[in-house]
Amino acid sequence: MDLDAVAAIRDERVDWRFKGLPADVSGTTIGDVADRRLDLFADGFVGPLVVLDAAALEHNLATMARWCADRGVLLAPHGKTTMAPQLFARQLAHGAWGITAANTSQLRVYRAFGVTRVLLANQLVDPAGLRWLARELAADDTFEFTCWVDSVAGVARMTEALGSVERPVDVLVELGARGGRTGARDQATALDVARAAAASPALRLVGVGGYEGALAHDASPAARSTVDSYLDSVRELAIGLRDLFAVDEPIVTVGGSAYFDQVAAKLTEPWPFPVRPVLRSGAYITHDDGFYRGISPLGRTPGAQPFRSALRAWAQVTSKPQPDLALLTLGKRDASFDEGLPEPQVVRGRDGVERPFRAEVTALNDQHAFVRLSDDDVEVGDWLGLGLSHPCTVFDKWPLIPVVEGTTVVDLVRTYF
Amino acid sequence: MDLDAVAAIRDERVDWRFKGLPADVSGTTIGDVADRRLDLFADGFVGPLVVLDAAALEHNLATMARWCADRGVLLAPHGKTTMAPQLFARQLAHGAWGITAANTSQLRVYRAFGVTRVLLANQLVDPAGLRWLARELAADDTFEFTCWVDSVAGVARMTEALGSVERPVDVLVELGARGGRTGARDQATALDVARAAAASPALRLVGVGGYEGALAHDASPAARSTVDSYLDSVRELAIGLRDLFAVDEPIVTVGGSAYFDQVAAKLTEPWPFPVRPVLRSGAYITHDDGFYRGISPLGRTPGAQPFRSALRAWAQVTSKPQPDLALLTLGKRDASFDEGLPEPQVVRGRDGVERPFRAEVTALNDQHAFVRLSDDDVEVGDWLGLGLSHPCTVFDKWPLIPVVEGTTVVDLVRTYF
Repeated sequence: MDLDAVAAIRDERVDWRFKGLPADVSGTTIGDVADRRLDLFADGFVGPLVVLDAAALEHNLATMARWCADRGVLLAPHGKTTMAPQLFARQLAHGAWGITAANTSQLRVYRAFGVTRVLLANQLVDPAGLRWLARELAADDTFEFTCWVDSVAGVARMTEALGSVERPVDVLVELGARGGRTGARDQATALDVARAAAASPALRLVGVGGYEGALAHDASPAARSTVDSYLDSVRELAIGLRDLFAVDEPIVTVGGSAYFDQVAAKLTEPWPFPVRPVLRSGAYITHDDGFYRGISPLGRTPGAQPFRSALRAWAQVTSKPQPDLALLTLGKRDASFDEGLPEPQVVRGRDGVERPFRAEVTALNDQHAFVRLSDDDVEVGDWLGLGLSHPCTVFDKWPLIPVVEGTTVVDLVRTYF
Repeated sequence: MDLDAVAAIRDERVDWRFKGLPADVSGTTIGDVADRRLDLFADGFVGPLVVLDAAALEHNLATMARWCADRGVLLAPHGKTTMAPQLFARQLAHGAWGITAANTSQLRVYRAFGVTRVLLANQLVDPAGLRWLARELAADDTFEFTCWVDSVAGVARMTEALGSVERPVDVLVELGARGGRTGARDQATALDVARAAAASPALRLVGVGGYEGALAHDASPAARSTVDSYLDSVRELAIGLRDLFAVDEPIVTVGGSAYFDQVAAKLTEPWPFPVRPVLRSGAYITHDDGFYRGISPLGRTPGAQPFRSALRAWAQVTSKPQPDLALLTLGKRDASFDEGLPEPQVVRGRDGVERPFRAEVTALNDQHAFVRLSDDDVEVGDWLGLGLSHPCTVFDKWPLIPVVEGTTVVDLVRTYF
């Protein structure tokens, strides 16, 4: 990764484009703001805000790195979660093997910051994107790119769009399953796709990919068994394709954030030839106070060191029109709402004292949260701190996110969505 | 509005920060890209994309302006819908009286582009925001700002935070209703709030505000009757507060995008003294192919000129793993999903020919849409054009949006979220 480009993020000017920042830092830079060690509540930040907890972030980075190293699996975290090159750099510094992307626009961000090894977890059939990719591969020998193929038609589209290339594009055959998302639905179809890819002058078959996260939605025995069966079929495919791979040590990659324990176990069972087992979990970096708290393998494994939620929203009570209702200055523009609503955790009154606070957010409008109160202990102007669910749909609402130790801002993370 | 600042948006450099743009325009400016009249499908744009239809946009601007003028109501469209100063300038050019905002961060964007008349449709109780506002008011005599108050506590917080001010902050008493969002719940409470505001040295009471959109959710007779009753109570409050207003012609403002016909009718019934009736509808500018298509007054009024949807998403079929399932390169990061999922409308095959296409999007993941197919007539690589529901949660996913005539890009709209 181009660490100079990452460091240069600190040179960007801050102003009214970045919601929540103090007005009086306008005209300075991200780096200046980080260095001033401003207080979230005393130095002019305006609500709503989302902040990252510095200690939880570091804990999660270290925990996942150690977990993968202990099990002998590589990690190419899905960068779509944060789209934050500063966090990619930290993931790579913690030993990540590459970064995963979802589409061409994301890949362009990665390349602007010199990410050298990228998995693009889709079949890339966009002619404009493919032509740009071919130029990027030709211009940089160190760039290692791999994407999915899951149909003979997709292989044909890619081959046609790429034409004559200096370096063929590395591809993995994606195996899916009935009821899942993308990916060939059975071994025979996957074999046809693999043969087509191996025969394409523009492609190079380097392994097998898959995604178990669309097949199950909880940690029940039935869900876990579905995931294990699917992982067995990925192994079967990879073993069957041995003679078609263009490399001696093919990649076998599966694994979101919900079942990576099972994925790591299956991908590290003995193989008849060397493979590179790669997980792509992305949400671990911040974890959450909702969906991933409920489903994370490290939360349900006895004795495991769990991840900690690194995300918190802060918003003021702007109205308390009934004793049982508070409205916050926080809405769909600021907080995720697709996998559970924000969870009030603390209240900070006018005296600056924080105390635990439990209540239910019953709805979000574009710019408001409805909080059902059970007693009368918050007032107009109080700040609520809220846990969030599903980091991906939090990051995409914030171009610049303060990183805090307590209430002190020690860094700012820039996202590019 | 500062039209030079708006024009200067064209000078911003484009690069990988703006998803969907052709790679080879990197390093040029927004204005350069607009002037090149690029084709959406031939000149390197990559999916997914969201575009604005130039003709529909102009139609909606003109239709709403004429509708308001015909009825004698003023329009302060809610700018949170688009957060696009270029579109604010067009709304103002079409006669809008001001622009509505939801919070301090939005207000800062507006002020960076010199919007002179702003309604902030919330009680603003953030000390840092209020101190900045007081400085902004003191520095610019032409800046007209008005926000809501809905509690005596809120008035106290504002008064305390503002301290001694050069220009008092104009406020409207907000009337709500049981089951609604913010706003005093009855006339007696609203009268207390008005008295407190009138007595505050930092505030000036200039009218009454409200929001009917949280009280009803469809166009049924019962819903419309609830809205009418609420509007009667707003009138009653405004008339009762006459002696407390600090101005001869107070503002009375209600009105989102779903019931503005009823609001305009009630606010233009005879008053015992002059008032300024102000609507705040924001979604009309693009309208949609979902929630607002279903509920817009101009859609259900016989003989009315309806709005037209100006928003369309384009995404490719990245996978077709089963005959009845296509996956698109479009997800929660790209399209709204909170008031209905995207609606496939046309398909554009490899031959560049567009034909009507109907199918159901059954789910969005972060970066994928699931389309249930009834026959086999889309292929991997085809582009689907999709209608969207709820413009507010589309705009906030796109920092730069092409404006098209057919498939020719004739302008680009910058948003600031």
